[in-house]
Amino acid sequence: MNFDEVKRQLEQEGNSKNGSIVDSMPFKFFEPFIVQGIKVDLVEPGRVICSMTVPPRLLNTANSLHGGATAALVDILGSAAIYTTKLASPGSGVSVEISVSYVDAAYAGEEIEIESKVLRVGKAIAVVTVELRKKKTGKVIAHGRHTKYLAVASKL
Amino acid sequence: MNFDEVKRQLEQEGNSKNGSIVDSMPFKFFEPFIVQGIKVDLVEPGRVICSMTVPPRLLNTANSLHGGATAALVDILGSAAIYTTKLASPGSGVSVEISVSYVDAAYAGEEIEIESKVLRVGKAIAVVTVELRKKKTGKVIAHGRHTKYLAVASKL
Amino acid sequence: MNFDEVKRQLEQEGNSKNGSIVDSMPFKFFEPFIVQGIKVDLVEPGRVICSMTVPPRLLNTANSLHGGATAALVDILGSAAIYTTKLASPGSGVSVEISVSYVDAAYAGEEIEIESKVLRVGKAIAVVTVELRKKKTGKVIAHGRHTKYLAVASKL
Amino acid sequence: MNFDEVKRQLEQEGNSKNGSIVDSMPFKFFEPFIVQGIKVDLVEPGRVICSMTVPPRLLNTANSLHGGATAALVDILGSAAIYTTKLASPGSGVSVEISVSYVDAAYAGEEIEIESKVLRVGKAIAVVTVELRKKKTGKVIAHGRHTKYLAVASKL
Repeated sequence: MNFDEVKRQLEQEGNSKNGSIVDSMPFKFFEPFIVQGIKVDLVEPGRVICSMTVPPRLLNTANSLHGGATAALVDILGSAAIYTTKLASPGSGVSVEISVSYVDAAYAGEEIEIESKVLRVGKAIAVVTVELRKKKTGKVIAHGRHTKYLAVASKL
Repeated sequence: MNFDEVKRQLEQEGNSKNGSIVDSMPFKFFEPFIVQGIKVDLVEPGRVICSMTVPPRLLNTANSLHGGATAALVDILGSAAIYTTKLASPGSGVSVEISVSYVDAAYAGEEIEIESKVLRVGKAIAVVTVELRKKKTGKVIAHGRHTKYLAVASKL
Repeated sequence: MNFDEVKRQLEQEGNSKNGSIVDSMPFKFFEPFIVQGIKVDLVEPGRVICSMTVPPRLLNTANSLHGGATAALVDILGSAAIYTTKLASPGSGVSVEISVSYVDAAYAGEEIEIESKVLRVGKAIAVVTVELRKKKTGKVIAHGRHTKYLAVASKL
Repeated sequence: MNFDEVKRQLEQEGNSKNGSIVDSMPFKFFEPFIVQGIKVDLVEPGRVICSMTVPPRLLNTANSLHGGATAALVDILGSAAIYTTKLASPGSGVSVEISVSYVDAAYAGEEIEIESKVLRVGKAIAVVTVELRKKKTGKVIAHGRHTKYLAVASKL
């Protein structure tokens, strides 16, 4: 790709005919945009399992679940598992680190299962793993880890 | 938080009054949703610099840029830097790993700068760093790395 | 710490009375140095479980298992799990990414268990998780992921 | 590789003729073992640059710098950069996360340069990047990030 193309593609994508729709979106629309359609199948102390049919809006150019959307699910659903423990309260904490390994593609319409499991929730630091799997086969799609700092952000 | 609350919050968020808007979104809306409003300031071989005013739609509950949106920017803009090199073509490659360290908050209306720099683009593997900074002070907001496999996905 | 101290401490540590011992160490001594004393408890396709008593030589200044040694165990034992699958042969492959979350301390003399589990072994990319746990309680000490490129290094 | 071979190789490596040498190693030998021979070229607030000739003892089976040793350097030299700032004192802090991307091989006898740069040192959390480069060409060998929790470990 030449340089102009990279520039054009990025700016076009972000200022296309969809621009007015995107610009009119309300405050804090990111989480609803990601989790719309999700179903919570199990909540227990330190563990949350959700399921989701991969929606058309979250696809990448290869027609599979976007890597950025996968990372967002690791963020949001990892936090949810942390909030199931006594030491953390919802909305508390700030992200310190998120990492995701992508091991397989999930296509539109495919049912996936997302399991978040707490490794540690201490006074200050929480760490959780988040695994995305194909519901039919159990095959792993992606494996993530999310670390949060739980004390008030001003003490970060 | 008790268990029902975790469930209710996640499902509500994803099935609220916004549900019909989200469900009507077109295929592959994720990237436009993230990069809408971005400006490409510099493109050179192995390096891309963009700027962006943190938009209301990408905020988290603490009113700062969502960690999942930050990870998505690392994904999308890291790929853009890889495409400025001769060895990679746009849309080629699949993500192998994305990791992000969050070091400071970026608030709505704040101007940020995002610099993607290629560490390696080989025949098979590309690695790129993506740094988000406050435009005014240069203070780092987040530091990410993105690894892609460049050969055709079927050989993964 | 002032600047001279940082310099002095690093260089002293690396050129102390132990210098001659270290300098006389043979080629490729790193792996034996790390895994000496390890016991392999289980090997099956895609999974290896080892146990180890935390040895004095691998301690950090806080008298617990060194973070660098933990990362080395993720590297070495992650590779071992990959070699239990048909698609990979021992010694093949190069590391692409290693990440480790540290969630608890392991002290000298403590028995630990290390479980490596393959998430994917494809033609080109292998990903494995490695979890270190206290043998007595099952409490997680550290969680790592290791990604390797399996095709010949010259095609990297 | 068949299962017995994996077991035999790991246990042999850790119980070979070198066993008695390794077992007689003193407490906390890990850091001297890694950094022996290192030279500190620059120390300034938030930044440390070291150089090192890749030593025979730290090689892997492919005769290049071991990935585990690289991760250990990210750990040790990342901490050193954190200690150059006023907010942190030496030996303080525990590792929360270490990640390394491997982008090129460094061979025995090759001179390398290791630059650690602080991204943040707050009251509680410090994040630092560590880049290993070939001294002759400046080519990146590996890029790491290291996150530490700085408050006393009992508050973790």
